[in-house]
Amino acid sequence: MPVTRLDIEYDGGEFAGWAHQPGERTVQGELETALEVLLRAPADLTVAGRTDRGVHAWGQVASYSGEPVALKSFNALLPDDVAVLACERAPDGFDARRDARSRTYCYRVFARRTPGPFEHGRALWWPHPVDREALRACAGLLPGRHDFTAFTPSETYHVRFERDVARAEWHGDGPLLEFWIEADTFMRQMNRVLVGTMLEVAGGRRTVDDFAALLRGMPRSSAGPTAPPHGLYLAEVSYG
Amino acid sequence: MPVTRLDIEYDGGEFAGWAHQPGERTVQGELETALEVLLRAPADLTVAGRTDRGVHAWGQVASYSGEPVALKSFNALLPDDVAVLACERAPDGFDARRDARSRTYCYRVFARRTPGPFEHGRALWWPHPVDREALRACAGLLPGRHDFTAFTPSETYHVRFERDVARAEWHGDGPLLEFWIEADTFMRQMNRVLVGTMLEVAGGRRTVDDFAALLRGMPRSSAGPTAPPHGLYLAEVSYG
Repeated sequence: MPVTRLDIEYDGGEFAGWAHQPGERTVQGELETALEVLLRAPADLTVAGRTDRGVHAWGQVASYSGEPVALKSFNALLPDDVAVLACERAPDGFDARRDARSRTYCYRVFARRTPGPFEHGRALWWPHPVDREALRACAGLLPGRHDFTAFTPSETYHVRFERDVARAEWHGDGPLLEFWIEADTFMRQMNRVLVGTMLEVAGGRRTVDDFAALLRGMPRSSAGPTAPPHGLYLAEVSYG
Repeated sequence: MPVTRLDIEYDGGEFAGWAHQPGERTVQGELETALEVLLRAPADLTVAGRTDRGVHAWGQVASYSGEPVALKSFNALLPDDVAVLACERAPDGFDARRDARSRTYCYRVFARRTPGPFEHGRALWWPHPVDREALRACAGLLPGRHDFTAFTPSETYHVRFERDVARAEWHGDGPLLEFWIEADTFMRQMNRVLVGTMLEVAGGRRTVDDFAALLRGMPRSSAGPTAPPHGLYLAEVSYG
């Protein structure tokens, strides 16, 4: 059976996340409904990153067993908040989830005193003082292997809470700040708790040393709040 | 009576334009309603550029007779698609419309085969071939004084159809193309007809020479279609 790879972009604002949920509008649901029309058979998507409710994607990747379909027809069947950027035959046995080497996420913060109509739902509006040097110092601590227990809900079950961060940087000079992070895999809400905690450091309510201590394995209650989903984007998935 | 200057940003997608219209949601209406609460008196706004239904603004300017109000309170009373960036005492006798020396508009075109969820309603999606050199050649013809009769609805009444263009340029290397134009004043729909006509040249359906001829005064029917409002932004207003 041939395998097809999809590259997907979506505005997560009106979705209950990627994965199927009864009675909810999901990205997976919209894509599989359109695919079923084009393939004249049910399609079952495997995804690289199961984004939560409200999280966006610029570079999501999914795969299914079956032939590629015409890109123009596919997009014509999709709503305005999701688009397929590529639909191509993948190497035999390709699996978007299992074969992914790393995921890169971006969290956008709109740090301006006044709200921004064009950033509404696209970035976290943050009308508070931000020490950008402190943000950069926190990001500088992230590359390498750390225990991220403090950065995922305490009811989360994982075999291990260590993750390997390949890259972590804050970018931006104007009002728009972007946190970019690449790792093998992420735990639930991990990026959003990282951002919520770093913004506490940037506001002077927590020190960089305190942030460093959290990376050695601490309870969830030690870290800061979970930043809202509408600032988060799955930016890229890398394969070998 | 003191005069106050407002700098305003709005997503025009859900507005019937700037100016009051009975039974319609307008930018002027939202701002005046909020101002009346804060000033405890009716406010009457004068605006630099009366944008049409669906047109956006990054740098609209308005003025009113009365004291400035607190920016934070003002924005707290406004919906998410409009924000006041500054609210400050202006020189005596300041009038946002009469004193404006020039207006700068930007028209955004998203030239990609696949639709862009994050550009939906924010740029014209244009999945057709675009000759970027032809666009630049057209823009190069615009600076100076021309007769723009061909670029405004034929039922439009004006004393004169000549306008002085100070600057006109196409920018952008990736899928996003931006047309920037600065002039003393613009006629109704002028920028949208300019863009619609230049896109015909960029698609090979009209020559650059033909575009040049239109600038010498021709009937509206000689020019191309009116590009949709959701790509257009009032970017800046300049004062002496």
